[in-house]
Amino acid sequence: MSRQELPILDASCCTPLTSEALTEESAVDLAKGFKALGDPVRLRLLSLIASRKGGEVCVCELTDAFTLTGPTISHHLRVLREAGLIDCQRRGTWVYYWIIPAKLSALSQLLDVPAASPDAVSA
Amino acid sequence: MSRQELPILDASCCTPLTSEALTEESAVDLAKGFKALGDPVRLRLLSLIASRKGGEVCVCELTDAFTLTGPTISHHLRVLREAGLIDCQRRGTWVYYWIIPAKLSALSQLLDVPAASPDAVSA
Repeated sequence: MSRQELPILDASCCTPLTSEALTEESAVDLAKGFKALGDPVRLRLLSLIASRKGGEVCVCELTDAFTLTGPTISHHLRVLREAGLIDCQRRGTWVYYWIIPAKLSALSQLLDVPAASPDAVSA
Repeated sequence: MSRQELPILDASCCTPLTSEALTEESAVDLAKGFKALGDPVRLRLLSLIASRKGGEVCVCELTDAFTLTGPTISHHLRVLREAGLIDCQRRGTWVYYWIIPAKLSALSQLLDVPAASPDAVSA
């Protein structure tokens, strides 16, 4: 997929949890994204890619940041990619990774609840 | 824990991934929350609780919304509670659940990236 072609999101992905209950289908789809984020190594890999100012990171740099083996890092990157959170392109010897902002943003909006619910506090 | 005592969050929890790379310690802590969200049943349970206008839901209503057994629902609710995403209180026969907005909000802020990174698109 080219870097310009961002995935089209189901509108239900971007509705906060506080607005309405999720359908079974939406829950299955969204849970895949959260499951991919539910590992400390994957979360650090994603943060290393997301915080890179130039927008992309060489796999060689990602491997250097951990004491894990290359195949283990590759496995975690594949899980993030299959969840639609990152994408990559091989250029010469190395593979370069970047985040898919629309997917991260959709998961963020789902969890975007007011810091304290007035109903709950006053009950 | 009473409903007024919201957990104090580590400031690093609320910094978007695009701002700086996560420390190993923060990643371990945050991954627990995402792992709890990485299951469709738990995500639907959380959305049923979060979308309740009164702020809390009786476990009896949650069980009725699924074709799963009571013990299975209880297991998933326990995972959400141990991740700090919900809390509960027994009153008489039933247990009542509500969300912990500060925890959900912290996870939301972590994933809050601009919908399209100008750097990435122009590269």
